[in-house]
Amino acid sequence: MSSPSPFVVRERVRWADVDLVGIMRFSAVTRLVEMAEQELLREAGLPYSMIFSAPEIWMPRRHLTIEYFSPARIDDELALVTYISRLGDTSLTVNVDVRHATTNRLVATAVMVVVCVTVAAFAKRPLPRVVREALTPFVHAAVDIQAEPPRTE
Amino acid sequence: MSSPSPFVVRERVRWADVDLVGIMRFSAVTRLVEMAEQELLREAGLPYSMIFSAPEIWMPRRHLTIEYFSPARIDDELALVTYISRLGDTSLTVNVDVRHATTNRLVATAVMVVVCVTVAAFAKRPLPRVVREALTPFVHAAVDIQAEPPRTE
Amino acid sequence: MSSPSPFVVRERVRWADVDLVGIMRFSAVTRLVEMAEQELLREAGLPYSMIFSAPEIWMPRRHLTIEYFSPARIDDELALVTYISRLGDTSLTVNVDVRHATTNRLVATAVMVVVCVTVAAFAKRPLPRVVREALTPFVHAAVDIQAEPPRTE
Amino acid sequence: MSSPSPFVVRERVRWADVDLVGIMRFSAVTRLVEMAEQELLREAGLPYSMIFSAPEIWMPRRHLTIEYFSPARIDDELALVTYISRLGDTSLTVNVDVRHATTNRLVATAVMVVVCVTVAAFAKRPLPRVVREALTPFVHAAVDIQAEPPRTE
Repeated sequence: MSSPSPFVVRERVRWADVDLVGIMRFSAVTRLVEMAEQELLREAGLPYSMIFSAPEIWMPRRHLTIEYFSPARIDDELALVTYISRLGDTSLTVNVDVRHATTNRLVATAVMVVVCVTVAAFAKRPLPRVVREALTPFVHAAVDIQAEPPRTE
Repeated sequence: MSSPSPFVVRERVRWADVDLVGIMRFSAVTRLVEMAEQELLREAGLPYSMIFSAPEIWMPRRHLTIEYFSPARIDDELALVTYISRLGDTSLTVNVDVRHATTNRLVATAVMVVVCVTVAAFAKRPLPRVVREALTPFVHAAVDIQAEPPRTE
Repeated sequence: MSSPSPFVVRERVRWADVDLVGIMRFSAVTRLVEMAEQELLREAGLPYSMIFSAPEIWMPRRHLTIEYFSPARIDDELALVTYISRLGDTSLTVNVDVRHATTNRLVATAVMVVVCVTVAAFAKRPLPRVVREALTPFVHAAVDIQAEPPRTE
Repeated sequence: MSSPSPFVVRERVRWADVDLVGIMRFSAVTRLVEMAEQELLREAGLPYSMIFSAPEIWMPRRHLTIEYFSPARIDDELALVTYISRLGDTSLTVNVDVRHATTNRLVATAVMVVVCVTVAAFAKRPLPRVVREALTPFVHAAVDIQAEPPRTE
C-alpha cells in the first residue's frame, strides 16, 4: 500500500545552478535529487542526523539516469516530486520528477538505483527491516512521463 | 530607519555540504550566503527573475570575510540572519550570520562587500535609486558577534 | 575514421568530492564530465573561450546516464577517458569512462546526449559544419564495459 | 628558511565556475583554494590519502578572507600561487593568490587561518612535529598585493 500522492519538496533555482545563458546547468539536477532524497528520508522518520551517526550500512548509487525536458531559469520555483518506484531486497529505485511549481511543466526526471551495502566490506546486504518499513508508504509506480499528453502553455 | 528584526532564511546542512568527519565544509558557507542574498532580494521586491533579465548593472563582490565559530553537522537546521550593514553610494555590505535554528548557537558569520558596476564596461556607478530604496528596510548595524556573552549549551 | 586512442584527462578526487565515509559522491561525477568535455573541446580546436563569446547555438543536454562500478577515494588520481560514441545531424553522444589512473579499475561511466539548438528560440538545428569536422577525430565506438573480463587487483 | 619561489598550481575556469555574464562566481574561489591546499600538501609529502586515513587531528578553518581584484572568464587559465604566511603553534595561515596564468594579472587573493584540533574533542592542540617540518619550506611572507605597482596590459 502506498500514500495517495507523492512526496513533494519545493526549491528555487539558485545562483550557482545556472549557466552562461541563464538556464539551469545539467549537473544542478543532482543537487535537487540530493535535497529531495534527504527530505523524503526525514519524512519517513529516517533523518540523516540519525542514519549517519555510526552507520553500519551504506547506500551507494549504482545507476543514475536524468532526462532533460525543458529549461528552468534563475529563481524559478521547482516542485521535486519524489517517490520510490521499486523497493527490492538489497536495492531500491528513487525517482525525482522536477517540475515547475506554478505551471507543472516537466523540467527533468531523475531515476537512481541505490544498493544497500555494509560499511565495513562494501558487500551487498538486505535492506534493514526498519528502513524497508519506513519507506513503504513512499512506493509509487513510476509515472510514464513519455506517455503524458503534451501540455499547452 | 530599519525594520525591527533582521531577515531570516532557514536551510538544512545538505549531503554535499559536509566533509569526511561529517562537519559542514568551510566552502559550503558560500552556498548559504548565495541563498540568503537571493531570498533577501526577493523579499525586497527585487527577485532575480527581474534583475537578471537584460541587466545593465552588475553587482560583483569586492571582498568576502567568513569567520567560523562552531561546527554544523549533516541535516542541522540553520537560521541565516541576513542584513545590510552599510548602504553606500556605489557599494553595500551584506552580512549573513549563520546560526543553529534550534539552539541559536553561532556557526559562522559572512560579510560581503558588493559594488555596483555597468555590465558594459565593468565601471563603478551609483546604485540605482530603486535598488537603494528597496534595500533600505534591510539595513541594520552589524551585530558585534565577538562581544556576545558566551552561551552555555 | 577516428584517432587510434581516446582522449584522456587526468584529475584527482578533490576535498569537496567525497562524502562522510570518504568515497566520491555520486554527484561529483558530473564535475568530471564537465571537465572532460571542456578539455576535449579545447583539444578539438573549439575552446570554450571561443564558442561562448556571442554564441548563436547552444548545446543543452537531453539525457545523462551514469553507472557506478567501484568507489574512488579522496586524492585518487582518475583517468577520464573521453570520446564521442555517436555524431548525428542535430545531436551527439559523449562518453566519459572514469578509471583509476594507476590500476585502470573502472569507477563510473557517463553517457550524455547533447542536442544542438539556436540560442534565440531553443529550436533544434543541425550541428555547424565546423563543429562536426572538429569532433570527428574523437568519434569512437562505445566500449562495452559490461563485457570486459573482470580485473584482478 | 623557505624555498625561493612559491608553489603554483594551474587550473582552468570551469563550466560550473561562471555566472550569468560569464565571469567566475565569487564562490568558485573556494574550489581553487581547496585544490591549491590539496596539492601543496601532496608536494609537502602529506597527501590527503595519508592524512585522512584514520585521522587523529583535524584542521578546521577559523577564518577566510577573499579579495576580488579583476574578473576571470570561462576557460581562463589561472595560476594559484600558494604559500604559508604564518606557521604558529596551533594554527597556520594559508595564502592563495589567484592570477591569470598568461598575463599574471591578479584575480583574487584568499587568506585562510586553519587551526589544529583533536578529532575526538575538537580541542586545540599543537601542530604535529611532522606536519610542521613538512610545511616549513612553504612558508613565505605574504605578498603585499595592494602595494604592487599597477600593471599595464
